[in-house]
Amino acid sequence: MEKSSVHHIMNNEYCYAIDKDKILIKISLKAGDVKHVYLHYLDKYIRDKNTHKKLKMTKVASDGLLDYYEATINVHMLCVRYYFEFISANSSSNSHIHDFYGNNRFFSKEITDLSYMYDCPQPVKEEEMYIIPEWAKGAVVYEIFPDRFAPNGTPNKKWYKAPMTSHGMLGGTLKGITSKLNYIKDLGVDVIYMTPIFKSNSNHKYDTLDYFDIDPDFGTKDDLHELIDSAHAMGMKVILDGVFNHTSPDFFAFKDLIENGENSKFKDWYYPESFPIKTTGKPNFLTFAYYGGMPKLNCANKEVRDYVFNVVTYWINEFNIDGWRLDAADEVGHDFWKQLRKVVKQTKSDALLTGEIWHFTSSYISGDEWDTIMNYNFRTAVVDYIATHSISATDFVHEFEYTRGVSHAKTHQILWNLIDSHDTGRFLHCADENKTALKLAAALQMITPGMPMIYYGDEVGMTGGNDPDCRRGMLWDEEKQDLDMLKWYKTLIQIRKSHPCIIEGGRTYLTVENDTDLIIFKAFDEKEELYIILHNGENTVSVNSLKGKTNLLTNETFDGNVNDYSVYILK
Amino acid sequence: MEKSSVHHIMNNEYCYAIDKDKILIKISLKAGDVKHVYLHYLDKYIRDKNTHKKLKMTKVASDGLLDYYEATINVHMLCVRYYFEFISANSSSNSHIHDFYGNNRFFSKEITDLSYMYDCPQPVKEEEMYIIPEWAKGAVVYEIFPDRFAPNGTPNKKWYKAPMTSHGMLGGTLKGITSKLNYIKDLGVDVIYMTPIFKSNSNHKYDTLDYFDIDPDFGTKDDLHELIDSAHAMGMKVILDGVFNHTSPDFFAFKDLIENGENSKFKDWYYPESFPIKTTGKPNFLTFAYYGGMPKLNCANKEVRDYVFNVVTYWINEFNIDGWRLDAADEVGHDFWKQLRKVVKQTKSDALLTGEIWHFTSSYISGDEWDTIMNYNFRTAVVDYIATHSISATDFVHEFEYTRGVSHAKTHQILWNLIDSHDTGRFLHCADENKTALKLAAALQMITPGMPMIYYGDEVGMTGGNDPDCRRGMLWDEEKQDLDMLKWYKTLIQIRKSHPCIIEGGRTYLTVENDTDLIIFKAFDEKEELYIILHNGENTVSVNSLKGKTNLLTNETFDGNVNDYSVYILK
Repeated sequence: MEKSSVHHIMNNEYCYAIDKDKILIKISLKAGDVKHVYLHYLDKYIRDKNTHKKLKMTKVASDGLLDYYEATINVHMLCVRYYFEFISANSSSNSHIHDFYGNNRFFSKEITDLSYMYDCPQPVKEEEMYIIPEWAKGAVVYEIFPDRFAPNGTPNKKWYKAPMTSHGMLGGTLKGITSKLNYIKDLGVDVIYMTPIFKSNSNHKYDTLDYFDIDPDFGTKDDLHELIDSAHAMGMKVILDGVFNHTSPDFFAFKDLIENGENSKFKDWYYPESFPIKTTGKPNFLTFAYYGGMPKLNCANKEVRDYVFNVVTYWINEFNIDGWRLDAADEVGHDFWKQLRKVVKQTKSDALLTGEIWHFTSSYISGDEWDTIMNYNFRTAVVDYIATHSISATDFVHEFEYTRGVSHAKTHQILWNLIDSHDTGRFLHCADENKTALKLAAALQMITPGMPMIYYGDEVGMTGGNDPDCRRGMLWDEEKQDLDMLKWYKTLIQIRKSHPCIIEGGRTYLTVENDTDLIIFKAFDEKEELYIILHNGENTVSVNSLKGKTNLLTNETFDGNVNDYSVYILK
Repeated sequence: MEKSSVHHIMNNEYCYAIDKDKILIKISLKAGDVKHVYLHYLDKYIRDKNTHKKLKMTKVASDGLLDYYEATINVHMLCVRYYFEFISANSSSNSHIHDFYGNNRFFSKEITDLSYMYDCPQPVKEEEMYIIPEWAKGAVVYEIFPDRFAPNGTPNKKWYKAPMTSHGMLGGTLKGITSKLNYIKDLGVDVIYMTPIFKSNSNHKYDTLDYFDIDPDFGTKDDLHELIDSAHAMGMKVILDGVFNHTSPDFFAFKDLIENGENSKFKDWYYPESFPIKTTGKPNFLTFAYYGGMPKLNCANKEVRDYVFNVVTYWINEFNIDGWRLDAADEVGHDFWKQLRKVVKQTKSDALLTGEIWHFTSSYISGDEWDTIMNYNFRTAVVDYIATHSISATDFVHEFEYTRGVSHAKTHQILWNLIDSHDTGRFLHCADENKTALKLAAALQMITPGMPMIYYGDEVGMTGGNDPDCRRGMLWDEEKQDLDMLKWYKTLIQIRKSHPCIIEGGRTYLTVENDTDLIIFKAFDEKEELYIILHNGENTVSVNSLKGKTNLLTNETFDGNVNDYSVYILK
């Protein structure tokens, strides 16, 4: 076997408690290298045969490079001593080839000394238990850009065209959103996520000027109360966008810095590089993306922290919001997020924290910072495969399997799987306005574990290029809406909600064909099995083995013929 | 190349700031797979040719499975976008085989889209900079078990035999230690580490009963002042042992729990499983190692934290100690250590924190918890190779290279490299009383980067089996002391201190022969090169290529003949 490919360290990525006395242990190794992996474990302090157990691990993913194995053990002990046993892929049933593996680089044909093994004291560290908000599991998110979703009254004439600058307003409001809650609920949405609503001089409001007030463009605090209370009454959660990496230059602290320079009480709230602070030209202070309109906050500063922690608890306590999406989150330090998490969870234990990061990394989502991320990796894979056909079926499946393999098992159930957002071109635009491609992409969101995030309007066929064009006014004119697309989204969400095996079950890939671009997998749990066919190619292909099953998308009996560019969910 | 073996994630293990605008980036891949690795990097927000740079990475270690490459870049930017270029080991100079690699699983023959690369925002996260106490780099540590080091006056008759139970006292004191500071300094020691000195009913005092008082067996607070002030005056640091995983059952909080059961104010200071608390038999509360004499403290509890934080700052503020060695540290949670680190560093910025853990893991020593660990991996390798000859020269070197490869570059300079401690048999005992083996082991400590830790008395040839036998009274009787061994230690330390290339330089292995057990490596920096020969085998072997150089250990000219079981440090 390829020993250099074994990935396992005794840290909170590979060994962690998911419940009291329940420890999940993970290992990955070269794809196809072994037939089985067994986990051996015993009590570090009672090293006898009575405590020594052996458990077959489950292969939870295979991404072409690595196979990922997991096992969950029930242990009531101070510290688990453990090691792995690999059964080589080449071994016959009569002559197993064993390799024992422990403590980072110990390989052996037999175990003579247990002191070379891993020790995991996680059972007694209850404070490190990996917990996610249960309500978030598999929930459907709807992203709203408030200026562009729904105005008070009738949209104006310019509504369907996005303004070119960040100062053009179209007139969407909180009251407008509240008036459309029935529409959102009817779509099947569980969670509304609004981009920033606090006072700011721009239309996107990612440059906050007062974290304790609603921007008057959008309405009042009463309007927010009404929106949240109504959403809650309808069983939906509401998540706000927190921009703590930077502020507006008109934020009181930065204004003071401009005014008083080196003598400002708020000097350490930012990263000034010289004085006086320049208000035009190349900024002499750190910013977001070198843009002078967004001076970077120093979140390592205790005063800033206390201020931000007041902000995040204020909106939970006073408005009962259900969580925060955290902007530009990877540019802020770990310690800040760890503290913020504590503050938020103490205020509302099941509040959700979703970090913005454009690359997959486990380092912010190991149970003590964010709960989940905007999963842009999902978008990249879906755009590359469905919209632009630039990767193969195999590569596409491997991306999904990679995400499952490297995610914490629970985080995987709440990744925000998006195909576009206010920061990207709309999927339909990326797919050259091909609506069938959008249908396939939406289907992929809905048949994948995690939290599918719908960017407002995708469900009625909205298009638009990169920011700002992707931020057009929501298509409310029924004549302009693609009602067939809307029905497709609703049907998909309905199926997703009635079949928990899609969200929480296992999954086995039966077919991944690059020539025909045909992917077939089985989603299963103890109660049922679904067969899902994704065909991202031309021509009709035959899948006779599944003939006779019912396609939940159409309620028709599957005749074995798979149409071009199509999806089937068969039961 | 073996793609499944590539190890790199954008986290604080593989990408971190070591100084302002200085970022260290590390990657490991299958040993021998590539000839060179280049790091490509640019400004995430200014993605043009002007910011794009390419740097050849340095192979810093090779452990038989993996090669480890590091590069340090100087960047003044908000976020570094980076990727790697591998030059295959099979490529000729005319036809380089490139593989570009970025974002966890992206391999390509060419780069067309920079969005698939890694983003590292560490330059602006100064609070995450990786800092170690400069004084600790390469410093020599001396571990003292206070009851057994030096009594007031003449040792009693039982002094040279360790008591069988944890209640037998031999009479060592703080004053005794102070009286021997000249001896310690003369040996070449930089740091004195004492096992616990706080009030306790045992001789080892790992079951603390009053964290704010010195045990009367050892003396008074004045005695500690005198010891520390004298040591400081002689240029030595003093580190105390903090036992925060558990207390004595006679600690006030646990006594209250016994007394008041469920109504105790201190119920949440421990982990009671039922009431009343049992004081005999199988404990009904969590403990250290299921031992009722050491009830486990709940360090997740804020009151406990505040109490412990008061303890750690008290001894720094009032006695000016230089750091803490943290007992059973891996059994206490990360968040506790992160907070404790902040408290300690705020009190004394260059205080050292050394965690006890018996297995190597980077998860506690990534810059925000402990500074370093008791490096028991070092001991295992040295015992296995030098004392028991149970591993080959190659395996031995690979263990060292593994440690270098997986350690943060700065941590590697302060690992506490020990060959024994109060918790193990003495090295001499493990080596079947073979003094030559002890000489080789001591040499290995002194020619290795890190902080060599001498367990009191090894330097005069003390022996002893596992605890409690390894805790005999220090050999002060000059007739019983091995003065040749003492001279050997002093010479080694002297050479170590006069040749910084040993501690901070690069190192290249020239010979690693399993048949003859011959290891030759070069330690080098800009000023000099040393050639070090370690021969762990019988017979004489010839190394004519180094003939004529001077052996710093003897000041003799090397004649090319390497004796059995010997060490040469040649210049």
